[in-house]
Amino acid sequence: MDSYSLPYTFSQRAQKLTSSTIREILKVTERPEIISFAGGLPSPKGFPVEVINKAFDRVLQNSGMSALQYGPTEGYAPLRAWVAEDLSKDGANVTPDEVLIVSGSQQALDMLGKLFIDPGSNVLVEAPSYLGALQSFSLFEPNYVAVPTDEGGLIPEALTAERAAGARFIYALPNFQNPTGLTLSLERRQALVERCAALQVPIIEDDPYGELRYAGQAQPGLLGLGRKAGATVIRLGTFSKVLAPGLRLGYIVAPKPIVSKLVQIKQATDLHTATLTQMAVYEVVKDGFLATHLPKVRDLYKEQCGYMLDAMDQHFPDTVSWTRPEGGMFIWVNLPAHIDGSQLLARAIERNVAFVPGAPFYAGPNPQANTLRLSFVTVSEEKIREGIAILGKLIKES
Amino acid sequence: MDSYSLPYTFSQRAQKLTSSTIREILKVTERPEIISFAGGLPSPKGFPVEVINKAFDRVLQNSGMSALQYGPTEGYAPLRAWVAEDLSKDGANVTPDEVLIVSGSQQALDMLGKLFIDPGSNVLVEAPSYLGALQSFSLFEPNYVAVPTDEGGLIPEALTAERAAGARFIYALPNFQNPTGLTLSLERRQALVERCAALQVPIIEDDPYGELRYAGQAQPGLLGLGRKAGATVIRLGTFSKVLAPGLRLGYIVAPKPIVSKLVQIKQATDLHTATLTQMAVYEVVKDGFLATHLPKVRDLYKEQCGYMLDAMDQHFPDTVSWTRPEGGMFIWVNLPAHIDGSQLLARAIERNVAFVPGAPFYAGPNPQANTLRLSFVTVSEEKIREGIAILGKLIKES
Repeated sequence: MDSYSLPYTFSQRAQKLTSSTIREILKVTERPEIISFAGGLPSPKGFPVEVINKAFDRVLQNSGMSALQYGPTEGYAPLRAWVAEDLSKDGANVTPDEVLIVSGSQQALDMLGKLFIDPGSNVLVEAPSYLGALQSFSLFEPNYVAVPTDEGGLIPEALTAERAAGARFIYALPNFQNPTGLTLSLERRQALVERCAALQVPIIEDDPYGELRYAGQAQPGLLGLGRKAGATVIRLGTFSKVLAPGLRLGYIVAPKPIVSKLVQIKQATDLHTATLTQMAVYEVVKDGFLATHLPKVRDLYKEQCGYMLDAMDQHFPDTVSWTRPEGGMFIWVNLPAHIDGSQLLARAIERNVAFVPGAPFYAGPNPQANTLRLSFVTVSEEKIREGIAILGKLIKES
Repeated sequence: MDSYSLPYTFSQRAQKLTSSTIREILKVTERPEIISFAGGLPSPKGFPVEVINKAFDRVLQNSGMSALQYGPTEGYAPLRAWVAEDLSKDGANVTPDEVLIVSGSQQALDMLGKLFIDPGSNVLVEAPSYLGALQSFSLFEPNYVAVPTDEGGLIPEALTAERAAGARFIYALPNFQNPTGLTLSLERRQALVERCAALQVPIIEDDPYGELRYAGQAQPGLLGLGRKAGATVIRLGTFSKVLAPGLRLGYIVAPKPIVSKLVQIKQATDLHTATLTQMAVYEVVKDGFLATHLPKVRDLYKEQCGYMLDAMDQHFPDTVSWTRPEGGMFIWVNLPAHIDGSQLLARAIERNVAFVPGAPFYAGPNPQANTLRLSFVTVSEEKIREGIAILGKLIKES
C-alpha cells in the first residue's frame, strides 16, 4: 500500500522498522516437526514452578492489597536492597538507591536508548552483538560503531580514541555473550574498563547469563572493576535466566544521577514494574533459594551443551570452527567463507532444522555472513544429535 | 553540576526532563498525617484478592511451565480473544488480531509516541488532559496543539481544519476524563469521529474508567462510532481499574497495519507482557467474573464521590464551581480567577491537605492556573469531610 494513501502518518523511526528476520524464522520453528536451534528460550525444566507458586500465595495472602496496588517507579524496596547486596559480593559496593527494577532487561535497553541516544549519536557495540539490543537502540536512530572481536571476545585495544570519539556508550556482554558464547578474560576486562575510564565512554554491561557458568573460572564483573578504575558502568541483570522469563523482571544498576533520570523515563514508559511480581520474586530469593537452585540449572545447561559439542565434533567437517562456551545458551559457528548462513538456513529448514544465521547480529556495514548461532538448551539429546548430523551433511555438501 | 563536567552525555530528550510536580507532591502525601486528594490510586477495597490468588494458583498448577516461559509479543491468544469479544458488545466488531496486550496502558502511550511522533510533530490534546500521557508523549518531543473544552468536555467544533493540519493524532478520554471527570455526550462523540474521519486525524481513545460508571447513561465508545464513520480509532483499555493496577496489564485495539507496527515496537520495548499475569487475568475474567464484581466497585466509588460532592456543597463558597462526574475517580474544581492552584496547594499542605493543582494538565502555552483536581476514592468519609472543610476555609480566605 502506498503510504501516502494511508489515513495516518507514522514517525520516521516507525517507517524504518522492517519485519525482523528472527521473527520470521521463529514462525517457521513453531511447526512441531522442526528441530530448532534458533530459540533463545531458557529450559522450562529449570523453572522452579512450585516455589514460585508458593511465593505468589504468600504475598497475596499476607499483603494482597499492597501487592495489587500501584507501586513506586524505582521498584519494591526490599528487592532493590537484595539486588544491591547480591551484586556487592563482587566487591562493587552497590547501594539500594543505585538499583532500579525494570520489566525485564529488554526494557532496560529501551530506557537506556531513551536516555543516551539522539538520532545520529555514535554507539559502540561488539561485532557481533545481541540482536534484541540492536532492535531496541535502533528505535532511537544511533550510528553504530562496531568494535571488532576475536576468539577471546571484544578486543579492548580496538577501542581507540578515534573509534570512541563522541560515543554515548559501549554495550558489552562479558559473560557467554549472545550470540558468540564467548567470555572476556580478566585481562581484557581490566583493559576495557581502563580505556573506557580514560576515554569517558560509559559502559553498559549486560549480564543475563553470568549465573549460568558451568565451566572455567568466574570473572569479576565490569561494574566492580569499572568503579575501581573510575569508569561509568551501568549494569543490567535479569531474573529471566535464573528463575523464569515469563515473569518479566530485571534491573539496572547505575550511578545515582543516572538512576534518577531513568526513574523519570521509566515513569513515562510504564509507570512501574508489576508490584505483585516483584514481591513474589523477593519472597523466592530472599532466603538464599538461588544458591540451591542454580547448581541444578547449571548442570542441565552443561549437559545440553555437551551433547551439542559432542555431536558437532562428530558431524561437522574440519573447515568449520566453533566456540566452546563456559556458560549460557549459545554456540557460535564459523563456516567456510563461501557458505552464507542465510542460504544454509533455507536448505536446513527443508530438512526440518533451524538456527539463526549470523549476519543480523552485526550492526556495522560488513556483517560476517558465514556464521550462525546455535542454541542447545531446549532440544532433547536425541534431536540435538539428529539435527547436528543434518547440518553437518548440509555443510559438507555446500 | 555543570553538564560539561559529567563523564557521559544524555540525549536531548533526557536533558529536557525535569522533576515532575506530581512526583514531588506525592512524596509529601506519603506522610501519614496528610489527607490526600492528590492520588490517582484506585481503592484497594475493590481488589478481588482471593479471586486473583486462586487464578494464579490454577495457572501455575495446570500450566506452570508455559506460564513462566517467554510468550508471543502480541499477547496471550485467549486474552486477546476475550478483549475482542468484550469490546464488540459495543457494536465495534473487534477481531482478536486487532488486539495487542501491553504492560499497563501507560506503556501503550509510550508505544504510540514511538509509532506516531517525530520531533515537532503536531499532536492534539484536550485542554486539560491526562498528565501521564503528556509525560509519555513528551519524550518524543511533539508540538502540542490544545483543543478547548467546556463543561461538556472536548468541543468537536474546535477541531478545525487549521488546528488539525498535520496532526499525527488526537488523544481523548471520553468517559469521566482524567483530570476533569467530564463525559462526552453522544452528539459530541458523533461529531468528533466525523470530523476526524474527514480531516484524517487518527483518534487515540483512552478509556481506563469506562466500566466505572455509577450515574447517567452509558455512551457508545469512539471505537465503534469511529469505525462506522470511517475514522481511524486506536482504543486503549486497562485491567488496572476493573481488577488491580499492580498487575500492570492493559491493551491496545487498532487496525491490523497499526497493530503490526506496534508489535515490532513492543518487541523492542520489552519483548512481551508477563505471560503468567496474562494467563491469570484471563482465568479471572473468562467466565464473566467482572459482571458480578464491577457493581460492587461502582457502588464503592459512587459512595465516595457522594461524600466529597456533599462536603463541597457544604464548605465551598459560591465563587467556586466543580464537575459532577458520572463515573471514575476525579472532580475538577474551577477557583475564582485570582486563586492559583499551586499557591493554594502550598497553604493546604501546611494544613495537611493535598490535591493536584490544575496547571500541569495543560499542554498548551496558557494553562488555566485557577483549577485543581480532587480524587475521592481512597480517603475515608470522615477525612474527606475534614479535608474539604479545610480547603473551603482556605479558598474563602484567599
